[in-house]
Order: sequence, then C-alpha cells, then structure tokens
Amino acid sequence: MPIPIRGPLAVPFRLCGITQSKMNPNICTICERSFRYVKKQRHISANATILFADIRGYTHLSERIDPIVLSEIVSGFQDQCAQSIWAHDGIVNKQMGDGLMAIFNFPIKSEHHAAAAVRAAVEIQRRCASALGDLESGHAEPAPEALGVGVGVHTGEVEIGEFSNFRSEFTAIGGAVNLTARLESQAAPGEILVSSAAAKEAPDLMAGIATRSLTLKGIERPILAHVLTRGV
Amino acid sequence: MPIPIRGPLAVPFRLCGITQSKMNPNICTICERSFRYVKKQRHISANATILFADIRGYTHLSERIDPIVLSEIVSGFQDQCAQSIWAHDGIVNKQMGDGLMAIFNFPIKSEHHAAAAVRAAVEIQRRCASALGDLESGHAEPAPEALGVGVGVHTGEVEIGEFSNFRSEFTAIGGAVNLTARLESQAAPGEILVSSAAAKEAPDLMAGIATRSLTLKGIERPILAHVLTRGV
Repeated sequence: MPIPIRGPLAVPFRLCGITQSKMNPNICTICERSFRYVKKQRHISANATILFADIRGYTHLSERIDPIVLSEIVSGFQDQCAQSIWAHDGIVNKQMGDGLMAIFNFPIKSEHHAAAAVRAAVEIQRRCASALGDLESGHAEPAPEALGVGVGVHTGEVEIGEFSNFRSEFTAIGGAVNLTARLESQAAPGEILVSSAAAKEAPDLMAGIATRSLTLKGIERPILAHVLTRGV
Repeated sequence: MPIPIRGPLAVPFRLCGITQSKMNPNICTICERSFRYVKKQRHISANATILFADIRGYTHLSERIDPIVLSEIVSGFQDQCAQSIWAHDGIVNKQMGDGLMAIFNFPIKSEHHAAAAVRAAVEIQRRCASALGDLESGHAEPAPEALGVGVGVHTGEVEIGEFSNFRSEFTAIGGAVNLTARLESQAAPGEILVSSAAAKEAPDLMAGIATRSLTLKGIERPILAHVLTRGV
C-alpha cells in the first residue's frame, strides 16, 4: 500500500512517526528503514551507483572569508545538490561540510542508476554554477578564487547497513565507495569524473567523451575516467 | 528541570519523542536541538575543539578484504571511538565510512574542552589498538597491513547550525573544522596530531611532547603540530 507523505492524508501517518525521509522527500521513513527487516545479517550487498561532490578550494576559502558567507555557500551547495539528486531518484546519504555522498538504486530501485547519477551530476554542475555565481557577485567581499564543484561517479557492489551499534542510520561502505571518493578528489572545478564501470552502464551519455588515466591514493591499478566538463 | 533519559521515569518523555541523542547518549534530543531556539540567525559562533579520526590505509584495505570483515572493522572502529568521545563529554557529530568528526564544548559545555578532546583521542588509540588487533588475529584472512588510526585535534571558532534547508541536523563548519580534517589526514597510524591552538589549552598534557611542522593542502602557513603516539 502506498503511504501518503504529502497533503492531509499524510497526517495520521505523521502522527505515528511516518514522515518524509530526510534523504529524499519522495520516500517515507518506512521505506528508508524497510531494509532492516529483510536482512538477516546486519547488512546487505547491492549493486549501486555512488556519487560524491564537494566544493573545490573550500579549505582555502574557509580560511579567508566571513563565516556568514561561508555558511550561505555551504547551504546553497547542499540544497542545489539535493534537488539534483532527488530529481533522478537518488538519496543524499551523507553531508559533511562542503561534501556529500549520494546513493542511486537503493532504496529506490532504478534500472539505469548509473545514467541517473551522471544526469544528477550534470544538473549539480549546472545549478551550482548559477547559485555560486550569484553568491560571488552578491557580496561586497568576493571569494578569492572562482568557486567550482568537483563530482565523482562510480558503479559497483557496496555493503549497505548500519555500521555502528549506536546510530540507526544506514550508509554504504566498501571499495566502490572509496574509489568514488578518491575519483571525486581528482576532479577539477566544474568536472565530473565517471569511472569506466559507471560509463559502461550509461553508454548514451558517454559517446565522444574524453577519458583520463588517474592514479588514486590507496588504489593499485590506474583508473580510466570519463571527464565531463560543465556545460557538456 | 533535568529530563530523565534512562529508566522508567524516561518512558513518558520517550512517548513524546524526547529520547537519548544519537550523538551522545548522555544528552536528550531537546538539549541537542535547543540551540535552534536561542539563535536568531541560522547559526551561532562558538569556541570548540574539533576531533577527526579515521582508519589509515582503509581505501587499500577496502579493495582487498571481504566486505563482512570490512563492515566489522568499521563498526568496531565507530563504536570504540564513540565510547571514547562520550567518556569525555564530546559528541559524535558525523560518521562517514571509516571516518568521524566529534565536537567538544557544544552542546555540552566544558571549560577544558581541548584537554578533553586530547584525552578522548588517547582513549581512541588505546581502544582501537586492542579492538583492531583482535579483529586481525580473529580472521583466517588477515588484513594485508597493520591497521592503525589517525587522529587530528584543533581548537578554534566554528559556526554551528543546520547548513541545509532540508535536513535538520546540526554540524560545525569553518576554517577550524577544515584545518582539523587536514591535520588528521597527515597523522600516521597510531598518531594524534594536536594543533598549537589546542595544545596551548591543554599544557599539562603537552609537556615534553615532540612537535612537527606540516604543510597542509589549502592552508597557506605551515602548521606546528604536537605529535602524540599510541602508548604515550
């Protein structure tokens, strides 16, 4: 039975604690938590696409600008990213300062999750270029360098569960998650780096896109990444 | 009026949604959220000590070991860190894979928050050395390298608030937070790197401790860190 999460029909559910998920307002907290009851182990394996994004040069920026401006930049960035991710059925699983991690294909199943994540990444770049540009032009004290966002996208097997005994908050861990984080750390401002594994699942979006070979910290073999640039 | 968060007296509060904070079981969710009502802005400035910790070599490890073992390592690490942080009145504000961020002096006020954070860091190293050692010896397939934890501690002005319109979860941002993260990224396995600002607030713990000059990404001036090693 679908659970109403908006409008007057949602009120009785809300009174029982069933509300919109904070990770994606299109799903309810029951859906978010349902995986707990199906798993016998403390976690399940799933094929998913992971997306990491952050603001390039944020540390440098955080040392130099007014904290109020900094907090506006972080809020604007987080909100624009969330809108982009939700529009493509992903969830915002983790936010940490100027960074975030999104999961596609869990708990909302999506056959073309790699393509969905790449489309979300393109939307993140488009929205943030506009939002960060407005911020830069709207303040008397401009940021010392142009603000840009770096994004990494990778598809693989991840472990999904609650990896802590005290916090009921699911997340994804595993080699594929860390590879995505490392990939994102190599993205220049405005760039989206898509791993070969994710690119193979989204061939229509990758035709004619340049590739780059990357050596990532902690990962032995070099990684071939497809490089999408803002505006592509 | 103190709110009971354990035992039978806590039941009526729990029915109203007032429970133990997930960030620290010694405070309730009202305390965790109370800052929202005092601030007129969307955030407040506070002097706090920030602690970052993660597992050194985790990316390399995550590529090579069984996901079940990996999840045990992550759970064990997160739980040992949380116990150490709570024992010194800090809160576990963020968990991300093998990493976490803790805040001291908010929302639980503590005059000697830098010393509390350093003591928590020492306890993290002590507990994790034991817990990770047990994991390594308890599996037929040993980890390819000795597991160790890196910790960074820094004291400074941070902005505390909810830096996203869709997620009611407070965190700390600002230059001091990023400096702590960069400091932690330079810690070798078993090391605690304490910034000069934090060390100055905890002189009793820092007497005779060696220092190291570090150049951190995105931070212009070199940073002098006090280096505590596991077992010190």
